[in-house]
Formats: sequence, structure tokens, C-alpha cells
Amino acid sequence: MSFLDHIRRCNNADLSQFEPWFVGAHRAGFVHRGFAADILQASGLFERSRDVWHLDPRLDTPEKRTAEVHAFLLGLRAGGHFNRLWREERYAVAPAEGTPFLMAMERSAVPWFGVRAGGPHMTGYVRRADGLHIWVPRRSYEKPTFPGQLDNTVAGGQPAGLGLHENLVKECGEEASIPPELARQAKAVSVVGYWNQSGQQLKPDVMTCFDLELPPDFTPRANDGEVHSFDLWPVQRVFETVRDTVEFKYNCNLVLIDFFVRHGLLSADDPDFIPIAAGLRRLSPPRRDDDVRSALTPVA
Amino acid sequence: MSFLDHIRRCNNADLSQFEPWFVGAHRAGFVHRGFAADILQASGLFERSRDVWHLDPRLDTPEKRTAEVHAFLLGLRAGGHFNRLWREERYAVAPAEGTPFLMAMERSAVPWFGVRAGGPHMTGYVRRADGLHIWVPRRSYEKPTFPGQLDNTVAGGQPAGLGLHENLVKECGEEASIPPELARQAKAVSVVGYWNQSGQQLKPDVMTCFDLELPPDFTPRANDGEVHSFDLWPVQRVFETVRDTVEFKYNCNLVLIDFFVRHGLLSADDPDFIPIAAGLRRLSPPRRDDDVRSALTPVA
Repeated sequence: MSFLDHIRRCNNADLSQFEPWFVGAHRAGFVHRGFAADILQASGLFERSRDVWHLDPRLDTPEKRTAEVHAFLLGLRAGGHFNRLWREERYAVAPAEGTPFLMAMERSAVPWFGVRAGGPHMTGYVRRADGLHIWVPRRSYEKPTFPGQLDNTVAGGQPAGLGLHENLVKECGEEASIPPELARQAKAVSVVGYWNQSGQQLKPDVMTCFDLELPPDFTPRANDGEVHSFDLWPVQRVFETVRDTVEFKYNCNLVLIDFFVRHGLLSADDPDFIPIAAGLRRLSPPRRDDDVRSALTPVA
Repeated sequence: MSFLDHIRRCNNADLSQFEPWFVGAHRAGFVHRGFAADILQASGLFERSRDVWHLDPRLDTPEKRTAEVHAFLLGLRAGGHFNRLWREERYAVAPAEGTPFLMAMERSAVPWFGVRAGGPHMTGYVRRADGLHIWVPRRSYEKPTFPGQLDNTVAGGQPAGLGLHENLVKECGEEASIPPELARQAKAVSVVGYWNQSGQQLKPDVMTCFDLELPPDFTPRANDGEVHSFDLWPVQRVFETVRDTVEFKYNCNLVLIDFFVRHGLLSADDPDFIPIAAGLRRLSPPRRDDDVRSALTPVA
């Protein structure tokens, strides 16, 4: 592995396998052609015209869309779709900052609809006399997703109707027993984006990166069963583990690489410096010419 | 103005006015259709086929390309082109990290050929009891470009054949009398990219951002006539001046906005947070759907 390999691994989506779906004039996400043909077509909720899917325009309020799509998803669930990944947690379908909230959608369905998700990913670090250290959690072996992998200090999906910082403070308490007055000192410092495909599922996600400097005498404790254990690692060990292995959950590597860049741990004269920095923030749909190495000069 | 307005102002290029030019299989840059028709065509050095310009393939080494193009540029200069902007300083034409060095080109010609330029832009800051402060220089009123405007603490173009960090240390000495042992502590922490057009000139530039924490008792001094004066500003004054005015040279605003983001001065719940973070790193050519506000969901 290398830092660029992690960026490539997160950005593995082949958009030619997907078609966009719209709510009115707003593109809400992407559906895989296979999923669309096998499942969406039969829902009666979507119509296809010119390679684009449109949610029934008679669903003319967020409430109606949320309710009708949820009823459809419950039907899928009854048929065995989603399995134990069903969360009973709603994500907002809101294509961009500044455009309207279109509807809410059950979290486990979101990647099937290629809807952008986000959320806070926080790096909790300690400045000690012997250098920077990072608190590294191992995910619970019971988690349905990525059990036992290493993770960012605190991270969470972003449920509809909650502020990002507020959500982070909540997750800090639940996942790491960080008290609210300490968690509120976390600072939003960056954004990481990627287009990840897993089978018919697409995650065009954007994570908001937070840094929190923790006091040397504070020890995070798992609180809600999502975390197996916390360990304090010298930053160099985190650096090498990210660079050389896939021990961290795939997208958490990008948040840590972003931390390494911001904290000056990479050299400007590393030929990968610019491709890494550019590759960490993929918010636009991938293009043929988007390999991280050619970020500087895509072929016309 | 607003932070997003600065990003839009830097990313004003209309690529439909330009055609790419190649050295062999490598796209080296873009030439404006007007410049190509009026000047390039007559050079005898370029041939156009299918909306693309190719440098004469008989120039099959970097040395030959550099020499022939330079002779052509000297001819243009003799005809009054470039005026006092001619620098006698060479930039590398090297389309991407990891791809070969194609040739060198006189600095003042680089934007006429839409060749990516770069260089270090450093923010020198001081942590005082009353908060973060930034050393803000005003450009000399004698400079041919952007006279009298505010600037990043130390910044410079990147000449061919010098390392980025090495170049920064040199510029720190020349522009601000920062001694080498102090300048070497500067850390590369980010990358800012934009596509800026000025008439027939195109700058698809990438700047490497450095932070340098300066001791409270150190005062930078202008050394080479490029800087009129240095002042130490509270970060909030820099923040408001960037946000509300055009007093800083256009691209220096992006470096400072990047500093504000990295140092946690923006809120994650500011609806502009993600568009700003994404908008600061425009390395791929602009697309119709690239407005900073729609960075999250360009229309398909």
C-alpha cells in the first residue's frame, strides 16, 4: 500500500454502471443499472427517461417522498434486502449545501441510491514531550460493518436534523466517553471526499474532519459497544500503519492522511504531495482522467 | 465579497476559449484561440490538428524544445510582447508529478501557454497570549504585478530545477530576512489550486501552502525591494479583510482561507464549509457544473 493507493481504493467507483436519479430538478443520487432494472423499475415510484430516473413528481413534499420511499424500502426489507444492516436511522437526501432538503431516507438504503452521506470524523491527539500521539480505536468485533478494523478516534454518520458539531459531541460521548465540554473544543479543519463503489452500492461521501487535542491525562473509554478498545499510538506508528497496511477501515485512512498533511508530516518535495492533497477531496463525480497521479493534467 | 466569492474570482477561466497543446503524448498546457490564431500559427513551431496544437515532434529533447521556443519568445519580446514583465527566469513545463520534464519556459510566457505554475506560499504566524497573529506584507508599489496589494507572508514562483522547500527558504531570506535555520522549520500543510484567466492568459496554478510559526520577538524585514512593509495583524483582522475586501492579491486569499479552515476558524455547520474546502483545491480543468455551490452535486 501507499497513501495514493488508499485514495485509489476509496475512489473505485465506475460511474458508467450507474444512472442518476432526480427529485424535480435536483439530482439526488445514482442507482446501479442492475438495481434499477431488478428492483427500482417495479417500485412504481420512479420513471426512467433518457437514462435518468425521476421520482414520481406527485410526491411533491419531503414528507410524501420520505413516507412513500420508506414504505417501498420496508417492502424490500421484508423480502430480505438490507438484512441486519437496517438501522432505523434517517439520513437527509440534500444534494448540496444551499439546495433544499428533498427527503429523508433509511441509512442502510442510502448507498443503494447513491446518495451522498457525510458526518464528522475526529482525530483525537495528544501532544506529549515525546511527540504527537493519536488515540486509535478498534471497532467492535460485533459490528455488522468492518468488525475489528481500526477507526478514527470518533466518527459517525450524520442523521437528518442534527448539526455536525452537535452530532460529533454526541458521538464523542457515546463512542469514547469524552465529556461534552471537552468535545466542544474539537475544531472542523478539513473535508475529505471520495466515490466508493461496493457491488451495486455507491458512496459519494464527504466527511468533515475534526481535530481535538486531548489532555495527556484523559483516556477515552468505549461506552456504547461500538468500540472494542482504545490505544494511544505515537503518530509515526499511525503513519506507517496507514501507509503500509489496510488495518484501518478504508475511508478512515483518508482522514488520517489528511491529518498527516495538515500537521506537516509529509514533505512538499515528495512527488506524491500534490496528488495526495488533491486526491483527498474528490467531491465531483469521477472522470476517466481522474487518476490521482494525473490530477495535475488530465488528458483533454 | 465572501470566501466563496474569492474562490469564484480565482476560478474565472472559460476553457471553451482555449485549445490544449501537446508535447508528444503529454498535454503541456492551453493556448487561447485568439493567441493561437494571431501568433502561434505563424511561429512554425506548432501544428494544429483536431482542435489540438502539437509542438514540432522534431524537437525531441527538452533542450531543443527549450531553445527553439525561447528563440520564438525572444522574437515576440522584440515585437513588444511581454513588456516589462519579461523575467529571465525559467519555469518547468512538467505536466504532472511523476511525468517527465518536457522543457523550460520563460516565466512571463507561461500564462500565455496555459502551463501550470506553482510555488510555495507561506503563512508566517505568531502565537501570542492575546491570540494568533499573522505577518502581512504589502507588495512594493514598484512591482510590475499587483503593486501595493497585500500578500502572503512569503511567496514565490517555482523556478525550474529547485526544490519547493529549498525555494521557500531562499524566498524567506530574500523577501522577509527570515534566517535559513528558522525558515527550514516551515511545514508544507496543504495545496491550493485554481484556473484563472486574464484576457488570453490562463493560469491553471497549484500553490503549496506552508505554515511557519515565528517567535514573538522576530520581525520580518523586506530585503529585496519586493515588499513595501510588514505588519503583524490579529488573525481576526486578516479573516475579515479577506472575507470582506479585495485588498489581498487575488490568489493569496485562497491560501489564507485555507489557513483559516485548517486552524479551525470556520464552523462545520457553516453551510459554506464544504463548498469552501472543496473549492480551494481545483486541480482538474473546470467544468460547466463546477460552481463552488454545486460542488456537492454537479448536474449529470
